[in-house]
Amino acid sequence: MANIQKPSIPKGTRDFSPVEMARRNYIFDTIRTVFRLYGFSQIETPAMENLSTLMGKYGEEGDKLLFKILNSGDFLRGADRALIDAGETARLAPQLCEKGLRYDLTVPFARYVVQHRSDIQFPFKRYQIQPVWRADRPQKGRYREFYQCDADVIGSPSLINEIELLQLIDEVFSRLHINIAIKLNNRKVLAGIAELIGAPDKIIDITVAIDKIDKIGIDNVNAELAGRGLSAEAIEALQPILAIDGTTEERLEKLSELLAPSEIGTLGVKELREVIDGSLALGLRARLDLDVSLARGLNYYTGTIIEVKALDVEIGSITGGGRYDNLTGVFGLPGVSGVGISFGADRIYDVLNALDLYPDDVKSGTTVMFTNFGAVEAVAAMKAIKKMREAGIPTDIYPDSSKMKKQMAYANALSIPYVAIIGEDELAAGKITLKNMVEGTQQLLTVDEIIACFANGGNPLLK
Amino acid sequence: MANIQKPSIPKGTRDFSPVEMARRNYIFDTIRTVFRLYGFSQIETPAMENLSTLMGKYGEEGDKLLFKILNSGDFLRGADRALIDAGETARLAPQLCEKGLRYDLTVPFARYVVQHRSDIQFPFKRYQIQPVWRADRPQKGRYREFYQCDADVIGSPSLINEIELLQLIDEVFSRLHINIAIKLNNRKVLAGIAELIGAPDKIIDITVAIDKIDKIGIDNVNAELAGRGLSAEAIEALQPILAIDGTTEERLEKLSELLAPSEIGTLGVKELREVIDGSLALGLRARLDLDVSLARGLNYYTGTIIEVKALDVEIGSITGGGRYDNLTGVFGLPGVSGVGISFGADRIYDVLNALDLYPDDVKSGTTVMFTNFGAVEAVAAMKAIKKMREAGIPTDIYPDSSKMKKQMAYANALSIPYVAIIGEDELAAGKITLKNMVEGTQQLLTVDEIIACFANGGNPLLK
Repeated sequence: MANIQKPSIPKGTRDFSPVEMARRNYIFDTIRTVFRLYGFSQIETPAMENLSTLMGKYGEEGDKLLFKILNSGDFLRGADRALIDAGETARLAPQLCEKGLRYDLTVPFARYVVQHRSDIQFPFKRYQIQPVWRADRPQKGRYREFYQCDADVIGSPSLINEIELLQLIDEVFSRLHINIAIKLNNRKVLAGIAELIGAPDKIIDITVAIDKIDKIGIDNVNAELAGRGLSAEAIEALQPILAIDGTTEERLEKLSELLAPSEIGTLGVKELREVIDGSLALGLRARLDLDVSLARGLNYYTGTIIEVKALDVEIGSITGGGRYDNLTGVFGLPGVSGVGISFGADRIYDVLNALDLYPDDVKSGTTVMFTNFGAVEAVAAMKAIKKMREAGIPTDIYPDSSKMKKQMAYANALSIPYVAIIGEDELAAGKITLKNMVEGTQQLLTVDEIIACFANGGNPLLK
Repeated sequence: MANIQKPSIPKGTRDFSPVEMARRNYIFDTIRTVFRLYGFSQIETPAMENLSTLMGKYGEEGDKLLFKILNSGDFLRGADRALIDAGETARLAPQLCEKGLRYDLTVPFARYVVQHRSDIQFPFKRYQIQPVWRADRPQKGRYREFYQCDADVIGSPSLINEIELLQLIDEVFSRLHINIAIKLNNRKVLAGIAELIGAPDKIIDITVAIDKIDKIGIDNVNAELAGRGLSAEAIEALQPILAIDGTTEERLEKLSELLAPSEIGTLGVKELREVIDGSLALGLRARLDLDVSLARGLNYYTGTIIEVKALDVEIGSITGGGRYDNLTGVFGLPGVSGVGISFGADRIYDVLNALDLYPDDVKSGTTVMFTNFGAVEAVAAMKAIKKMREAGIPTDIYPDSSKMKKQMAYANALSIPYVAIIGEDELAAGKITLKNMVEGTQQLLTVDEIIACFANGGNPLLK
């Protein structure tokens, strides 16, 4: 046995207590229920993927943030001594590690689709709720292990999928009582803007800069654009687009006029309009904002881009997604269009905690705890407990015949709402004293009476 | 972008398709429901633990089977060049890796209890359902990533906990319709036997050998015992114990007589009797077998030892557990007694697959799929779908206006029981043709009529 250790866990990771788990399950169950209601089916993929599946999919920075798993046995066998001597760890790592932990659910999903394509019915609507791992610098709201909840439709170019996903987002956050705004953009609109101002290679610079208008003002944005190498003419041409305001309908109209000269831009506006009109026709509780500066994962998305912001808490995006046209191409299956969204369960958890939005019945569980006065009483208690569990009532016995005060304090600390007592008198009467821990009331009942009361719902002592 | 890759996953890991997930969720949901019914609360711990938490807890072989995570950045910084040059990978690995993937749920739980002890109410009844990872050689029924479902009570020496866990095991397998035998032993009985025959240091050799009686016969067992260094006298003294047979009650009686000279052995028999009598008094559907050769994890358990075998399939133990008296000692909290069990979800999955024991309603989900005949019909369909989802009916639309035949084939392939059709006629009538895909019947209904039928349960076309 090792020496005594002060226990801890790796930074950026978390333990979840029973109370925290009840809250997290409330989030996961809500998302899962809505996913199912919308026709998505669950899959799971392994935590470990071949490193070759993951590397090169998230950019150079992403490669560094992959957790890599040291090969078993003689891991130095395939290692290049020159790299060791030169301390070239970035190039050495893939020689020591064949496997890595998944970084998101999207690349494993693309791999899954290609690997199992002969067994899949397309369009394939899958959901997946699993943890992912990133060797990011841990900070508030950013963890090294966190859950993603993804829903994707793959193999259908129809914009109905986008409309369905916006409905689904609206439903999830409505059920969670979180007020949100859904931001919408389209990659083709961004391409159109870049084309229009004669800078098709500057899409990223343009979007990064105009994303800051609210923060730094238009003059500073223009200065930044010049610093990023945009010509004066391009910046001049961009101004009418930056000046677009009004309602979403008005914005769409102006954007449509301005992008008329660009074929791809016009297509983007048409797609946006179809998605927005389709969504509004069905009704949407969330605010839907057209936002031409929205560009998340630009190299990845090819059409619709979606991002969700919580309105009542300062926190980054809590859900995001979009359409991609070539996700599976890198694995040998080109030309498959997909669209998907990812709920950030850990940020949603932070929002619910900040606003204390949990319903009252989110707690850890046991409804009735029987006290324990010794062997004879315990036998009677366990027979009653068996019946109560058969009736579906989460029931427990305090396992040791400790002092009554200690047992009651235990039930209190765990917020168990009812304590059942079988002492000498109850044994003689063949009954149970049921105590309501919230009201402080109590009543002498048979086990069948107790079960009948719970079956009728709620509080047996108030019936 | 990388070159095109033929997609695969690491050996010993698995993808789970929607049908497989539905089956697995049936198992997990059953276990989770019973855990809650018995008063256990859920926790979760990170996939990654500090390697110092894991190393030395599973023996030398276990250390080798830990998946270790390469440190980020300059992982060679702390590495001893001499170890690299000598190729001493076993000693080098902990210098390159601070973290490892959890190997089971027990050690992380012990770490959790010590780390959070000031927030925990004891006795602490926790359950945990999470994957674990082992760099084992993959083979039939043995995976490198698999789920454990653990329930432990920590901080209570009462044998009521053992009786409760046996009841819980009985309930889980009864709900899963798996016929089982529960094997029971007690570490103190094994200690008593070793003491009795004058070989207290040979407990492991004795149990390993006598475990084989059924396979190789008593003569070969005796030969093996001699080979393992047991004296002729010890082997002679062991014979009456090996000869014990009869009902569990008769076995207990004989064991009690034979172990009378041993204090610890007598205590073990007393504990066994209390657990067996207590369980049988409450009723147990499973067969309960006293098995003095049962010794799983001997160095670890200190009292009751439990193992569950499926009766109708040839497969290893599908659940196991026992009592331990010093689990948390290595993390600085001595003297805490606990008892727990672990359900092997993946083996249970294999048993259910082998016997095809899934209930009919274990499938992947969507109840009604609307066909898609084009933009106008789709708008009407989506309005109906919104209403149906609000009524809790998992409903979907085929996103593309493909040929009818293709859409129907899709619904068929996914075993979607109802297809809803809105074409020109239905649009004009403000109704929906609902087709029962199993019976082949169909009927013209309003969306409200359809919802009302489903709300009444079952098959709207047979009402």
